[in-house]
Amino acid sequence: MRPLITLTTDFGSSDGYVAAMKGTILSFCPRAQLIDITHDIAAFDVMEAAFVLRQAVPHYPDNTVHLVVVDPGVGSKRYSVALRYQGHTLVGPDNGLFSLLLGDHEPDALITLDRPDAYRLPRPSATFHGRDIFAPVAALLACGRTLDSLGTPLAELRPLHWALPIDDDRGIRGWIVHIDRFGNAITNIPRSLVDTRKGKRTLKCYVGNAIISGITEIYSAVDVGEPLLLFGSDQYLEVAVNRGNAAELFHIRRGTPIHMVFADER
Amino acid sequence: MRPLITLTTDFGSSDGYVAAMKGTILSFCPRAQLIDITHDIAAFDVMEAAFVLRQAVPHYPDNTVHLVVVDPGVGSKRYSVALRYQGHTLVGPDNGLFSLLLGDHEPDALITLDRPDAYRLPRPSATFHGRDIFAPVAALLACGRTLDSLGTPLAELRPLHWALPIDDDRGIRGWIVHIDRFGNAITNIPRSLVDTRKGKRTLKCYVGNAIISGITEIYSAVDVGEPLLLFGSDQYLEVAVNRGNAAELFHIRRGTPIHMVFADER
Amino acid sequence: MRPLITLTTDFGSSDGYVAAMKGTILSFCPRAQLIDITHDIAAFDVMEAAFVLRQAVPHYPDNTVHLVVVDPGVGSKRYSVALRYQGHTLVGPDNGLFSLLLGDHEPDALITLDRPDAYRLPRPSATFHGRDIFAPVAALLACGRTLDSLGTPLAELRPLHWALPIDDDRGIRGWIVHIDRFGNAITNIPRSLVDTRKGKRTLKCYVGNAIISGITEIYSAVDVGEPLLLFGSDQYLEVAVNRGNAAELFHIRRGTPIHMVFADER
Repeated sequence: MRPLITLTTDFGSSDGYVAAMKGTILSFCPRAQLIDITHDIAAFDVMEAAFVLRQAVPHYPDNTVHLVVVDPGVGSKRYSVALRYQGHTLVGPDNGLFSLLLGDHEPDALITLDRPDAYRLPRPSATFHGRDIFAPVAALLACGRTLDSLGTPLAELRPLHWALPIDDDRGIRGWIVHIDRFGNAITNIPRSLVDTRKGKRTLKCYVGNAIISGITEIYSAVDVGEPLLLFGSDQYLEVAVNRGNAAELFHIRRGTPIHMVFADER
Repeated sequence: MRPLITLTTDFGSSDGYVAAMKGTILSFCPRAQLIDITHDIAAFDVMEAAFVLRQAVPHYPDNTVHLVVVDPGVGSKRYSVALRYQGHTLVGPDNGLFSLLLGDHEPDALITLDRPDAYRLPRPSATFHGRDIFAPVAALLACGRTLDSLGTPLAELRPLHWALPIDDDRGIRGWIVHIDRFGNAITNIPRSLVDTRKGKRTLKCYVGNAIISGITEIYSAVDVGEPLLLFGSDQYLEVAVNRGNAAELFHIRRGTPIHMVFADER
Repeated sequence: MRPLITLTTDFGSSDGYVAAMKGTILSFCPRAQLIDITHDIAAFDVMEAAFVLRQAVPHYPDNTVHLVVVDPGVGSKRYSVALRYQGHTLVGPDNGLFSLLLGDHEPDALITLDRPDAYRLPRPSATFHGRDIFAPVAALLACGRTLDSLGTPLAELRPLHWALPIDDDRGIRGWIVHIDRFGNAITNIPRSLVDTRKGKRTLKCYVGNAIISGITEIYSAVDVGEPLLLFGSDQYLEVAVNRGNAAELFHIRRGTPIHMVFADER
């Protein structure tokens, strides 16, 4: 089977940076198959990259290598790491990129990339570790090299704190963590929390300048242009508009609070 | 030979949605080679997707599987379909996406995807059939499964009406169906219609705030910055500016009418 | 090993043009692996494409075929060419696209594509040589055809003039040749020129509305939001802001002059 490598960066698609990384990967591991997750992460936005990784990585086959370079601290003293988690191999800077994917779990193995001789680059640049360190490492791992041969075990990843929703018996307060291409506003409120707290009561939800009652299963459960709440394909609560753009219509952005209030039906 | 799968969606390139579909495909058919047609179809714009498919699909080798997900009615009662047409396999929602590619032709085979057990997903989400239904189906078909094994024959596709040009002996009235990246404005007027109607007469063409005489073969047949008419690479009449942006210069959009008038030379 | 073909165009990612080229390539050479360098070159911007090729091509393995279509003169009398240079094969219109990659060097072999029968297309369109000439040629070369079989030797490429920096003992005057996705402003001043001219003197650099002293090695050598100069990963001088956008902050664009003044320390 061909080794599979995905790429996630904030490099955009106009420059030659991603292409230089891909050429480097294919020089180290010519058999590799390359899949772009996205290169349109906002510049330096580690949290957004962490979110997209959580959406995409679990759907990949075992032994896929995921190369992730959103690296505002490139050249400074942050670690470069590679890790194994639930059959996946992840490579990138140690700045919290992997935190949402791992959640409360520990990696199955974790190293810091401190053996530059092992990936044979004579002079890595100080500003483009994606090309000069992470790409060769990902390629070597995809082509069969072991983690052990590329670095030294590390005790733990640097955490990235993600605000949890606040809940009590009367409701849940959360926030919007991602606006997608359609203007759907995805919250940090998982289905399990709503199921636990809401019970059989009705709910009213306040977000941006919208008030929405009840949770539906599909977008077209309401009329075109009407707002709705549903659990998205990753089982988090999402604010949407049937065939419309909820973020624009209701002035919702990343960081906007959302407040769910439960009430007994009369 | 490796199975070939193309992807066309309105999911954009910033979220993890396309990547989740690709991971799913590669989990079901690890040998597949994936090619993006585009993910930048405007949200919910079935007609634009139909146009791009007509541009691209005919150039692919036989037995390519084309996965198309522009699906404003996801979760509602529209059919999910797979079909064979002139050596290609197409998979997507039944909402008119394939209408321009097929034109007046019928598919060679057509099924509705009504055997969820056949693609082995325990619990498809209601909002992301691209990942949970269409991706596995495309992958299985690419890896050798037959249409018959995945669904039940369907009599016909849902049509999508595309306005035809109106013509008489004095001229042709059509409209702009696509603005491309260069600002070229592509009409719904095929070369064959102009050839039939125009004969050896001269023509004047009114579109946006431009008046253009005659049809040329190449952009550089006129001076830089001057407007022109030509038949584009897909043999439809196109309004362009040599090294310029016709849509911007002449206030032309999708839907703008174009009027060709024929006259005898004196 | 699978033949490797990269693609660089100004076709954008919304139309079916790139996908039509890819389908054509895979029809001529089904084993090919396709890698996008970029399709977001500004329309007709040959110089920008030349810049990105210089960034990316050197990192690819030997025998990669690089297909480049930024072609404002399509259909006019410019040559279509294929060439070999340092193990790479390059295919595209002869309009200066390869000038920055080659620098002062000559190609190792150069042909003009004047044997249309050799790539077997019955009727190439006059407006889409990318699909109808360059894609088949790149595919055939990747799958093993020789340059000789596809055209006639050509004496030299058309040059594209790139303004060189002006330098004397007191300083260097250059200009900005590229703004990258992060707003980093890349100059035409190579590290070697600064090393030669500056010696051990201090420097002051004037660019846009910024004045910057000294050259650092990494972005984080200055505080967040502060400007800096460094040599980028391709060894050209670059104006940047630590975790910020230098082009926006200092009103720098492509073409903006940059002036370095050297002075003895007192």
